[in-house]
Amino acid sequence: MNDVQELVTRADEVAPEFAATSAAERRALLRGIADVMDAGADELVTIAGEETALPEARLRGELARTTWQLRKFGDAVVEGSYLEAVVDHADPSDVPPRPDLRRMLRPLGPVAMFAASNFPFAFSVAGGDTASALAAGCPVIVKAHSGHPRLSRRTAELVSAAVEAAGLPAGVFGLVEGFEQGLALVDAEPIEAVSFTGSVAGGRALLDRCTARPRPIPFFGELGSLNPVVVTAAADAARGDELAAGLAGSFQLGAGQFCTKPGLVLVPQGSRLIQELPAQVAEEEPTMLTERIAEGFATGRAAATAVDGVEVLAGGGGATAPTLLATDASVLLANAEVLLEEVFGPLTLLVRYADAAERESVLAELPGSLTATLHAEDSDDIDGLVDRLGRLAGRVLFAGWPTGVAVSWAQHHGGPWPATNTQHTSVGMTSIRRFLRPVAYQDAPERALPPELRDDNPLGIPRRVDGRLVPGA
Amino acid sequence: MNDVQELVTRADEVAPEFAATSAAERRALLRGIADVMDAGADELVTIAGEETALPEARLRGELARTTWQLRKFGDAVVEGSYLEAVVDHADPSDVPPRPDLRRMLRPLGPVAMFAASNFPFAFSVAGGDTASALAAGCPVIVKAHSGHPRLSRRTAELVSAAVEAAGLPAGVFGLVEGFEQGLALVDAEPIEAVSFTGSVAGGRALLDRCTARPRPIPFFGELGSLNPVVVTAAADAARGDELAAGLAGSFQLGAGQFCTKPGLVLVPQGSRLIQELPAQVAEEEPTMLTERIAEGFATGRAAATAVDGVEVLAGGGGATAPTLLATDASVLLANAEVLLEEVFGPLTLLVRYADAAERESVLAELPGSLTATLHAEDSDDIDGLVDRLGRLAGRVLFAGWPTGVAVSWAQHHGGPWPATNTQHTSVGMTSIRRFLRPVAYQDAPERALPPELRDDNPLGIPRRVDGRLVPGA
Repeated sequence: MNDVQELVTRADEVAPEFAATSAAERRALLRGIADVMDAGADELVTIAGEETALPEARLRGELARTTWQLRKFGDAVVEGSYLEAVVDHADPSDVPPRPDLRRMLRPLGPVAMFAASNFPFAFSVAGGDTASALAAGCPVIVKAHSGHPRLSRRTAELVSAAVEAAGLPAGVFGLVEGFEQGLALVDAEPIEAVSFTGSVAGGRALLDRCTARPRPIPFFGELGSLNPVVVTAAADAARGDELAAGLAGSFQLGAGQFCTKPGLVLVPQGSRLIQELPAQVAEEEPTMLTERIAEGFATGRAAATAVDGVEVLAGGGGATAPTLLATDASVLLANAEVLLEEVFGPLTLLVRYADAAERESVLAELPGSLTATLHAEDSDDIDGLVDRLGRLAGRVLFAGWPTGVAVSWAQHHGGPWPATNTQHTSVGMTSIRRFLRPVAYQDAPERALPPELRDDNPLGIPRRVDGRLVPGA
Repeated sequence: MNDVQELVTRADEVAPEFAATSAAERRALLRGIADVMDAGADELVTIAGEETALPEARLRGELARTTWQLRKFGDAVVEGSYLEAVVDHADPSDVPPRPDLRRMLRPLGPVAMFAASNFPFAFSVAGGDTASALAAGCPVIVKAHSGHPRLSRRTAELVSAAVEAAGLPAGVFGLVEGFEQGLALVDAEPIEAVSFTGSVAGGRALLDRCTARPRPIPFFGELGSLNPVVVTAAADAARGDELAAGLAGSFQLGAGQFCTKPGLVLVPQGSRLIQELPAQVAEEEPTMLTERIAEGFATGRAAATAVDGVEVLAGGGGATAPTLLATDASVLLANAEVLLEEVFGPLTLLVRYADAAERESVLAELPGSLTATLHAEDSDDIDGLVDRLGRLAGRVLFAGWPTGVAVSWAQHHGGPWPATNTQHTSVGMTSIRRFLRPVAYQDAPERALPPELRDDNPLGIPRRVDGRLVPGA
């Protein structure tokens, strides 16, 4: 029995016990993890800085976001609406007549998480996937990202300490490392779901593997995204300089290593933005998260600049130099296969359009994205654009830039393929839905029902009763 | 361009228009379909009887359930909570600070439905899958089941007439027939999801195909189910005769051609139920829905009866004779691969257990099911059993038998593999979630927001505002 099998067996054994914990117990666990991470912030940030080359301020901010997120999930579990509890009393007038039916969501069981390279806290060992799965009541086994192994191990130690301090069995949380171990985790029979943040190719391989299991399991991938931005002629004329500054900041933030980096910007011909932007592109070459990401950036950039009609407006020299490209809509459309590939890193492609029709013809060709951003003026007629962007992406922004992702009930971090392969989000409170499945109880005696479904609703959670939503206590 | 491509292209073209219809317009469509089907009941039931050999009373009941279901979805769309609308006003105290974020569910686009053989109305052309997808705002293309082609065509004509009467484009609904056409439908680029009710083998093939597309799409399968029943010694002693009558009715209902037929019944050694039941098994051989189902029944029955230690208590003679088998828990466990296969048709297997530990050892081996049923007395300690059954199945029954499936908010018709491959239900109001995906709007001006997300909530739908659920008007 290797490490993975041991961890999975242990997780499987404790799954019923962990599923049976109360909401208050799981909130205490999540707060406990947040507390030990906050207490260990100096050490964690130091290790993270050494392994990722990300600046300290960014890492401190990301850690704060991560512990805040853990606490938010704890609060959501106690609030209880995530259970989608429904009580339907018997009704003989239904067709067919309805027995007493009560339903709520239950944890899936042990789940596997593949950590990302680019957020060593927020999308890694104790990040959003782990927080939401623990909140749901599922044991978690994380596959560490090879980009920050020491940080992963240290974070895992802290999580395990918090699990122990909460009086829960060690099987609630585990960490594995290495490519082969990751595959063994996906194949392990008791694993009930896999979540992943990373490349389209990696996600595609894991999706296929999850589906090919003797017992297929759901795969929740957050994959590639172009994050198109549309600037109308009126917006460009009114505030092209301001937009240039905003875009410069957004596409170079964190060396462009964000899944929400704006990678393609539709600007009107003769744009002010396009004139202002080159001067705001940094000359300094950032250190990328890993060698592999640096190589991928160089390859992607070379493929784009090799296209006839693509101009390099800034950068393009040094291996990881922030790079600003520009081209015409017609060139993009003729080279969609190359130019609509995400280049992970500090690069964005400005695409000039002659008129609304040409802009629409580009939008119609774009693949799915996590985000789409519209910069327009009150004078613009945007109805068609909003509808189009809503079909393209999971989040449509009307101000600012897509590189910030708030953690809230209304957040959606997902979108049409290849942004994700699912109808779920990986950020925000509703990401917990990935790790739950419904169970209905028919004509159950009071003593057989979970408290959440009893008539007296002792926990005071929000429910739907006989068709009507009833807020919590 | 063949028929499928034409239908898919047409559906894709009208998808944005259909997605933009109001809830009231979609309710009118669903009511219109229900009305024309009710008006055509005599004709529809006659054709269905000729094609399926199901009795008229059953078909009339199923049709009534189907039109009631269409109307219920219309009401649910107008009620609006299915949109999961969330309004999060900007909050600078969040980490990171939160912009204004508003989210709701939007229709996926054109979806494909594979009709089932065994419910020519409720799980066929205008059944629950079609009703929920149209309610969601998705154009639907149905792959007819070959078991009732004339009924499928006639139903499709009525649906198309209702689409036209509602002033909607014809592309909102289409019908294809034949195996190859079905595969072409799954492969067609614009199709956004596939739903299916049928065998594990068929569902597995379609799941693989949906995943293997260049752009993978979700597959919602409702597949195989044993539907275990547990009878405690106390319940058997108290009402073994009554339970025998109930089980006799349930496993023979509709010639056992229900996905919720009880296929495995755990009874105590020396059970009264087992003594009473054989006399209640009909000798008449029912006509099965199709030749293929009759052959599958004969093959499955032969495999089970060939196992050493399996006794035939009733039936087993004629090709489709209702069949009652019995064996000991030890035999079942030693032959799990054969005896835990669903036999679709009028057959059930009684499994005798010596004590609670042996009963638990059988339950621990069972595959996932749509339902699990417990017959216990007040004197029984059932905590462990309820938890176990909830891990096995999507619906746990405490009285009655699993062969009725009410259509309500609390219904869950799903369960662990091979019952389904997803965390969603295919029956009940929440089945609409399969055909929706979230879109979040960040810092959107009022004019860009759907009415459901505006501050004044003009449609009065239930929403979550700044974390708190607010019931509808």
